[in-house]
Amino acid sequence: MVKLVLVRHGESTANSANIYTGWNDVALTKKGRMQAENAGQLINQLADFKPTRLHTSILSRAIETANIIADVSNFLYLPITKTWRLNERNYGKLRGLNKDLSRQIYGEQQILKWRRGFYAVPPKGKPIIDRRYHNCDFAHLPQAESLYQTQQRLLPYYYNQIASRLAKAEDQLVVAHGSSLRALIKQLEKITDQEIVNLEVPNAEPIVYTLDDQLEIIDKKILS
Amino acid sequence: MVKLVLVRHGESTANSANIYTGWNDVALTKKGRMQAENAGQLINQLADFKPTRLHTSILSRAIETANIIADVSNFLYLPITKTWRLNERNYGKLRGLNKDLSRQIYGEQQILKWRRGFYAVPPKGKPIIDRRYHNCDFAHLPQAESLYQTQQRLLPYYYNQIASRLAKAEDQLVVAHGSSLRALIKQLEKITDQEIVNLEVPNAEPIVYTLDDQLEIIDKKILS
Repeated sequence: MVKLVLVRHGESTANSANIYTGWNDVALTKKGRMQAENAGQLINQLADFKPTRLHTSILSRAIETANIIADVSNFLYLPITKTWRLNERNYGKLRGLNKDLSRQIYGEQQILKWRRGFYAVPPKGKPIIDRRYHNCDFAHLPQAESLYQTQQRLLPYYYNQIASRLAKAEDQLVVAHGSSLRALIKQLEKITDQEIVNLEVPNAEPIVYTLDDQLEIIDKKILS
Repeated sequence: MVKLVLVRHGESTANSANIYTGWNDVALTKKGRMQAENAGQLINQLADFKPTRLHTSILSRAIETANIIADVSNFLYLPITKTWRLNERNYGKLRGLNKDLSRQIYGEQQILKWRRGFYAVPPKGKPIIDRRYHNCDFAHLPQAESLYQTQQRLLPYYYNQIASRLAKAEDQLVVAHGSSLRALIKQLEKITDQEIVNLEVPNAEPIVYTLDDQLEIIDKKILS
């Protein structure tokens, strides 16, 4: 038996302003930092959780959350990998847009399709030019992603870097984003393309999976 | 030309209590966190400093400082390596002892020899049993180190992981400890065994080296 703990970052300034964020780099709010501290305390109290690595994205709100959790749960010494493959879904042209305004521009139905349809790709946004992506192992940055595409670029990292360690009975801790975690959870829990619409991942509430030797789920708990 | 920036962690609870810390894991004080923020702002203002990696020890006071600096200087996305090879010198039996008390026990001269003699090894302390060292690439944890021994275990990391990147014109940022940095600076600046006694590395004041293609020092600045 081995444990995989997934945590969505704490509230960001964009969450609180009701904006599509995606690959925009925004900070945690004060509430977000407190949520992260709380998540760290909950993880600290987990019996028999001994992760060997912490995985996060290269977006500040996830890294900040990961650092706070590591500090509070006495896992500051853990090796940490920051990868674009755990980044939030890239919302393309919706990036940076207020959610109410987006409904006025594109219509309620179209927005719902882009947000919740597993294969729906929003309109492409401007290319993201940022030195943090200079050394990424991909030729072309996505300019917009469906949830399916998000899953496609996330799963290679999951299998190579996370599942491979779980298979050696090493617990793992992942701090990522609402949609990148939805994409991962869909795969772990075998959720259908239709049902994934209904999955919400709340900020900074650790999801604790206990897995068997075949990495099948034995138990799932959400800490809050 | 390439830049190497070295930073000693901010004030720790042991610094403020005048205790030999070494491999004991202590937190930053509030003052220490503010010093780290200040160091982050100074690094943020550095023209043309574009590090590709952040290197620190596996002791919390250095990791906390590194995380604060990364946050304030907008380098949170940088890959970070935490290695025992950048740990503070292991003070052996002096570890955890008040500095005044140590002079009463061992005598002023003996303490001065252990503290400042390059090859002097303090008495061995208890073995350090801590899960953070489980995956370290060394068979036996040192139970006490001279500054020379500290340098011996630090330099392989410096050459393999830091100098190799500097040689590719990639700036590097290192957050470590008073004595581990003294050991590194001794090598970089070709300081003699006698003269190293006089080198002090203040908390959280970034030391900025500009190096040529052969990694010889062109310029050194201390920011404060």
